[in-house]
Amino acid sequence: MLLQRAPGVYVLVKRMCELLGMSANVPTDICFSFSGFLHRGGGTGPHRDGWGIAFYEEGGYRDFRDPHPSVDSPIARLICDYPIKSNVVISHIRQANVGGVKLANTHPFTREMWGRPWCYAHNGQLSGWERLALGNYTPVGSTDSEYAYCWLMGEIRREFPCPPADPTTLWERLHQLCEQLRALGVFNMLLSDGGYLYTFCATKLAHITRCAPFGEAELSDAEMTVNFAEHTTPDDIVSVIATEPLTHNEAWQRMVPGELLVWRDGEIQARYCP
Amino acid sequence: MLLQRAPGVYVLVKRMCELLGMSANVPTDICFSFSGFLHRGGGTGPHRDGWGIAFYEEGGYRDFRDPHPSVDSPIARLICDYPIKSNVVISHIRQANVGGVKLANTHPFTREMWGRPWCYAHNGQLSGWERLALGNYTPVGSTDSEYAYCWLMGEIRREFPCPPADPTTLWERLHQLCEQLRALGVFNMLLSDGGYLYTFCATKLAHITRCAPFGEAELSDAEMTVNFAEHTTPDDIVSVIATEPLTHNEAWQRMVPGELLVWRDGEIQARYCP
Repeated sequence: MLLQRAPGVYVLVKRMCELLGMSANVPTDICFSFSGFLHRGGGTGPHRDGWGIAFYEEGGYRDFRDPHPSVDSPIARLICDYPIKSNVVISHIRQANVGGVKLANTHPFTREMWGRPWCYAHNGQLSGWERLALGNYTPVGSTDSEYAYCWLMGEIRREFPCPPADPTTLWERLHQLCEQLRALGVFNMLLSDGGYLYTFCATKLAHITRCAPFGEAELSDAEMTVNFAEHTTPDDIVSVIATEPLTHNEAWQRMVPGELLVWRDGEIQARYCP
Repeated sequence: MLLQRAPGVYVLVKRMCELLGMSANVPTDICFSFSGFLHRGGGTGPHRDGWGIAFYEEGGYRDFRDPHPSVDSPIARLICDYPIKSNVVISHIRQANVGGVKLANTHPFTREMWGRPWCYAHNGQLSGWERLALGNYTPVGSTDSEYAYCWLMGEIRREFPCPPADPTTLWERLHQLCEQLRALGVFNMLLSDGGYLYTFCATKLAHITRCAPFGEAELSDAEMTVNFAEHTTPDDIVSVIATEPLTHNEAWQRMVPGELLVWRDGEIQARYCP
């Protein structure tokens, strides 16, 4: 897919990916980066069934979703030109399996819980998901992804009517719920409440954290090199999480199946393993 | 503000308005119409504190919101160029009173209930709203508008855990709840679940329904005439609801304070008066 990002740095990547997340300690825009979507999202690749990107800004939330290939999407082009600065971003390109190609089935999905706008995107396919008992949240569309999201959120809300004083109790429970979903198939997931970014790996997720001293990065799938040192301040911390590593000369960490990472301000706050 | 719309017809209007709704029996786009936002929303007028527009498409929902004046907004410009066809549209330009100018306070607001994406926009100002007891929904931002919305949705959901078999029981209760909010101040409101559009008038709302035989319309605030007969089919029914009438040679109906109208496919399904 698309981007490498440090503050003020944008590059294109020729690899397609399904999930992309960002956690940063400074509001960061992804305008140029998003340009990748225009060329990768459905031109010739399999991920032509819609795309979406969600931004958290000063406690608010907005997403841009389109059930059409990003290569044809004026909305996707807009994202390239409009500097939306955010500490947390979740993006998804869809290859439909369960559920028709339409707006209601286009990630990311969002629900309000505890007065926070929660956002979620999923890569993979589940089986037996229809037997999960829903709680407070009901799907609008017909995907396994949104159903699993509603179940997950319903379970959390049932057990935590209010945010727990100790957030680790929530994180531990979230990890257990993700493991339950992983037992139903492939469940790679990005989830956020705007503060924390949760990334769960069933099969494929990799991450990189860039901070001082910044160096050069060479993209795996494009003839492009970026010197992050030229575009950052010493305090910047920007982490990118994607289905596949996007550069070949940096130490991307591959998550292991069953692993949940909890990110905040670009850094890992907690790690839960199976 | 902005637009008059029949299928295929777009015109600009120089009057500012705060609320705009559309209900139609054919998917209708408002691209050109929305151009009005670019010039009316905050260039020189008082409504410079953000804008938003929500579309329902094939059971799905998306909105575009921006806390910046529409005149400066690339997203608003996008809406002019991107043909989003919808049977129900809700739009709002904000003049902030309660709550800062930021994304979380920008209308329209949305919550999921019964597996449907509900959307809401409010014009007016309330007092004593903080004393309303919230139920299932919690505000993300700090406006009286969103708080009242969460209370309203919570009350409905508490009384109707599932959609009632007879929708008029819901409509009657909705009217009572709107009247309760009107008792707190000015509560002009647009609300939709994607099928029905609900319009409640506290002080100012007017509506026009266009259907065959279509005629000409002359805008009140711009030198522009549209012959709807040239752009419609005999079966088209498109209703527009706005804070103020937008044309001067058509029979706009002004709603009366305390009146709730229930729209579907461009037509009034039910009317509740105080």
